[in-house]
Amino acid sequence: MPADPHPLADGVAYVRGAYVPIAEAAIPITDWGFLRSDATYDVVTVWEGAFFRLDAHLERFMRSCERFRLDPGLAPAQIAEVLAECVRRSGLRRSYVEMIVTRGQPPWGSRDPRQAVNRFYAFAVPFVWIANEAQRERGLHLKVSAVQRIPASSVDPKAKNYHWNDLTMGLLGALDAGADTVVLSDAAGHVVEGPGFNIFCIKDGGLVTPEEGVLEGISRRTVIEIARSLGLRVELRALPAEELRGADEAFLTSSGGGVLPVTRVDDQVLGTGRPGPVTQRLLATYWDWHRDPAYSQPIDYGSR
Amino acid sequence: MPADPHPLADGVAYVRGAYVPIAEAAIPITDWGFLRSDATYDVVTVWEGAFFRLDAHLERFMRSCERFRLDPGLAPAQIAEVLAECVRRSGLRRSYVEMIVTRGQPPWGSRDPRQAVNRFYAFAVPFVWIANEAQRERGLHLKVSAVQRIPASSVDPKAKNYHWNDLTMGLLGALDAGADTVVLSDAAGHVVEGPGFNIFCIKDGGLVTPEEGVLEGISRRTVIEIARSLGLRVELRALPAEELRGADEAFLTSSGGGVLPVTRVDDQVLGTGRPGPVTQRLLATYWDWHRDPAYSQPIDYGSR
Ligand SMILES: Cc1ncc(COP(=O)(O)O)c(C=O)c1O
Ligand SMILES: Cc1ncc(COP(=O)(O)O)c(C=O)c1O
Repeated sequence: MPADPHPLADGVAYVRGAYVPIAEAAIPITDWGFLRSDATYDVVTVWEGAFFRLDAHLERFMRSCERFRLDPGLAPAQIAEVLAECVRRSGLRRSYVEMIVTRGQPPWGSRDPRQAVNRFYAFAVPFVWIANEAQRERGLHLKVSAVQRIPASSVDPKAKNYHWNDLTMGLLGALDAGADTVVLSDAAGHVVEGPGFNIFCIKDGGLVTPEEGVLEGISRRTVIEIARSLGLRVELRALPAEELRGADEAFLTSSGGGVLPVTRVDDQVLGTGRPGPVTQRLLATYWDWHRDPAYSQPIDYGSR
Repeated sequence: MPADPHPLADGVAYVRGAYVPIAEAAIPITDWGFLRSDATYDVVTVWEGAFFRLDAHLERFMRSCERFRLDPGLAPAQIAEVLAECVRRSGLRRSYVEMIVTRGQPPWGSRDPRQAVNRFYAFAVPFVWIANEAQRERGLHLKVSAVQRIPASSVDPKAKNYHWNDLTMGLLGALDAGADTVVLSDAAGHVVEGPGFNIFCIKDGGLVTPEEGVLEGISRRTVIEIARSLGLRVELRALPAEELRGADEAFLTSSGGGVLPVTRVDDQVLGTGRPGPVTQRLLATYWDWHRDPAYSQPIDYGSR
């Protein structure tokens, strides 16, 4: 077989000070980041060669680190440089870029997390879409799961974490039932979030998105800002599953694809059954903002 | 520096079909076992050259796999052989032996867990004690945390998992407050379990241990069986934190050290402030059972 002409186009990772092909990137099996999911992370995207809202992602990442008492060992500007170097070496113009801190491991025999040396990792891989093109065109079919999202009294949802068993089990149930993806609820029956996204619904031209029990997504924030700039009403509050089913339109927000239309919730078809006009307008503006210098930061790919 | 005379005494891992020194064992950074904590595991111990209750651990492991729809790709007897080989190569006579299945990774672009190839890992390292010798002698000082254990409505606690952020945050709070370790409660204020252990209390000669919201520890089961064989009363039911504070004795159970006496809960000293007589009796019998051929399975270390 001929050698892969672009061996780094699958992605580049930063591991213990070195840049390596993504397929070679690994973490020690004994790292508590794995053995106790004792880690935090963030994901920023690169679109047409530029980071989108990098500062917002770095700020959230530093807050997540503080919340879980994890130390990346690098200042935000240094992290930005590592992320840019991963992207630069991969040559990717559209990329999904992840930064991670793990607890590491305390000295042998100690069970004290404070004695561990935390580890910073990063990688850039091709852009990830939460839904494929056909799904985005027709709108997603969403299932409201009976699995409850891990509550804030157990794990702080505002600090980004890998505690996804509830999301994964809910997703498996939704896929088995023929839906495209899943949204979980809290103990009171309010929908909260899904595997990698926040949720919005639209009724009589106004937006509603859950306030508590969710990650404050950067795409969520972007859509809230867009909606307000367009003069739309936005409410941050508890969203009963029944209200979602009765909405005119609905959509998901995620760095993994921006604004993703939803056209069905459980057995309920929303509106006309096609992505609605408000959703479409927000979606178009979301991508327009990617060309706004206020939010995008071009990467210097050099002469590679 | 002279070469380490026993390079494998730190541990041996089984990674993608090969046995490697524990320091070289790693998992791909892109494995959902890490990026979504989408994994299950079990831990069995080796004491004086023999597995303790290996069958019970293998049975629980297979049940955890099924619950989370993970496939180790090996039958229990094959897993037992891999574990024994890790221990054999390490030469360790007292060992902490972990078996793991991770989701692996679906084909690039897919978000469907059903399309992933699951991965089996294992390792044997020196025996882990949840509490050091001094702590075991005087009895542990335990803090009841305000952090709630992830509820069963979100993640099934009976299937062993790495969702430990709640336990880790609780532990950090307890250590900062000067306690040795922590126990978490459920939303109703009943204590449930801690980082790596179940909990028991003793009042008027009878034992109580939480029934719901906990992993069904093999050490917990062993202690229940021992207590019943000694004619002691055992109740499996909800255990209010107040009742724990008012107990005559208390102890933790874990593969990481067996029966671990507790002599203080928050500001409350239990009984005389020293490990109590019932706890001591259970502790002694726990180690006696390690010599019972019904529960122990010697490892053939060959001529190494
Ligand atoms: C649980 C959860 N909620 C929401 C989101 C959306 O956040 P963002 O818009 O910053 O990508 C994510 C992203 O991965 C997530 O994991
Ligand atoms: C959350 C939790 N509870 C209880 C236990 C005790 O189980 P066992 O006695 O099988 O070691 C463990 C062991 O790691 C655990 O992780």
